[in-house]
Amino acid sequence: MTQSNAAPSFILVHPQLGENIGAAARVMANFGLADLVLVAPRDEWPNPKAVSMAVGSPVLDNARLVDDLTAGVGGFTRLYATTARPRGMEKPVMTAREGMADVRAAIAAGEKVGVLFGGEKGGLLNDAVALADVIITLPVDRSFSSLNLGQAVGIAAYEWMAEEGAPAVFDPVSDVASRFDLEGMFEHFEAELERAGFFYPPDKTPLMVQNLRTAFVRGRWTTQEVRTFRGCVKALAMGRGKARTLRDK
Amino acid sequence: MTQSNAAPSFILVHPQLGENIGAAARVMANFGLADLVLVAPRDEWPNPKAVSMAVGSPVLDNARLVDDLTAGVGGFTRLYATTARPRGMEKPVMTAREGMADVRAAIAAGEKVGVLFGGEKGGLLNDAVALADVIITLPVDRSFSSLNLGQAVGIAAYEWMAEEGAPAVFDPVSDVASRFDLEGMFEHFEAELERAGFFYPPDKTPLMVQNLRTAFVRGRWTTQEVRTFRGCVKALAMGRGKARTLRDK
Repeated sequence: MTQSNAAPSFILVHPQLGENIGAAARVMANFGLADLVLVAPRDEWPNPKAVSMAVGSPVLDNARLVDDLTAGVGGFTRLYATTARPRGMEKPVMTAREGMADVRAAIAAGEKVGVLFGGEKGGLLNDAVALADVIITLPVDRSFSSLNLGQAVGIAAYEWMAEEGAPAVFDPVSDVASRFDLEGMFEHFEAELERAGFFYPPDKTPLMVQNLRTAFVRGRWTTQEVRTFRGCVKALAMGRGKARTLRDK
Repeated sequence: MTQSNAAPSFILVHPQLGENIGAAARVMANFGLADLVLVAPRDEWPNPKAVSMAVGSPVLDNARLVDDLTAGVGGFTRLYATTARPRGMEKPVMTAREGMADVRAAIAAGEKVGVLFGGEKGGLLNDAVALADVIITLPVDRSFSSLNLGQAVGIAAYEWMAEEGAPAVFDPVSDVASRFDLEGMFEHFEAELERAGFFYPPDKTPLMVQNLRTAFVRGRWTTQEVRTFRGCVKALAMGRGKARTLRDK
């Protein structure tokens, strides 16, 4: 089964406790959401504690299990990352309310939307946040900020339902590249940069990769743009004049 | 201890599961609420499952245990009843959002506010709803309407915090690169693509350049991102391993 196009999918990245997965599935059904993606949950699946907490929610029965983040986000064209803090990345930061209004507008414009939630231990890692178009923060009290995963899902789901009727203001890019395409482009680009010796010093590589990905994601490239850029990388990586030489043979 | 006058108290009427009481105490602290009243919980008190789920929330430590509804609501001047359905009573019915805005206004006017939540088995009984000034309903899907008690508390608590001014509309990209910087980046990139022999056939070059520039402009890159990307282009254009070789000399 694939995600519905009429509502966002919720993607739990490395969730740990079956109880929270079940609670998420229950509250998603409470608020009219159907598609739950589980990226490499810690415990065995199916998880009896998730079943118990879901109290019969069809969302749990239909949950899609995937092995890694790339598989989890691959089918979407627009991603939202829920985090407790903005992370200092150059991305739009929205409240849950604004974020869900934006989700609704994006879906109306034909986007396939996924909302990412991190695991219990520390939320989303920066590599996942870097893939998102928008950051959604929840207004937690700084002195007691650790929000339960099921509660975070509940609030986002509630805002999805509560936002019904919010105006749709969204300037769509047509044919936005899927995350599979984008991931392929990133890996290609980064592999050539690595070969060229661009990443230096080595311990800065993850941060440089993250910053590059953030910059590219913000542009919301089309599949054609992704193809074109990969052509650029290929030509550059061959060295000056090589592409022409090859073609002229 | 008595309820704070600056924020509403939450009153759980005949709650059953310690887990839900603990979850309520945790999420109240997440959203800046301090005063929890427990009207005759089913199980013994203190409840170890509540302690476990509260993960150290001070709200649980300070929870006030009372024997009956009258004692629970006695200290308040204005009460809100959360229910899944309006009950046909002649009272104002508000959404959680409207309800929490109303709570805030009431507190500003000097009222002592309590928000009532029913137990797991069937929510608030009519006698409790009858005591309320206002009914707050949550927009649950009728086909799967049973909302977990902890989630109901979480959404009300979230709305309390979210109502506190709604700032942070859109965090704009800081330090967007000037068009001079961007033009410099384009010319650099395109010159290396030209050298590499990327542009082919020649009469398509202007269109390809235009499409590439369009894609980059949409991302609204910062000066730092422009610098980083120029570094990438430089490294790639030197050919595989050259940047590393240069650096190691």
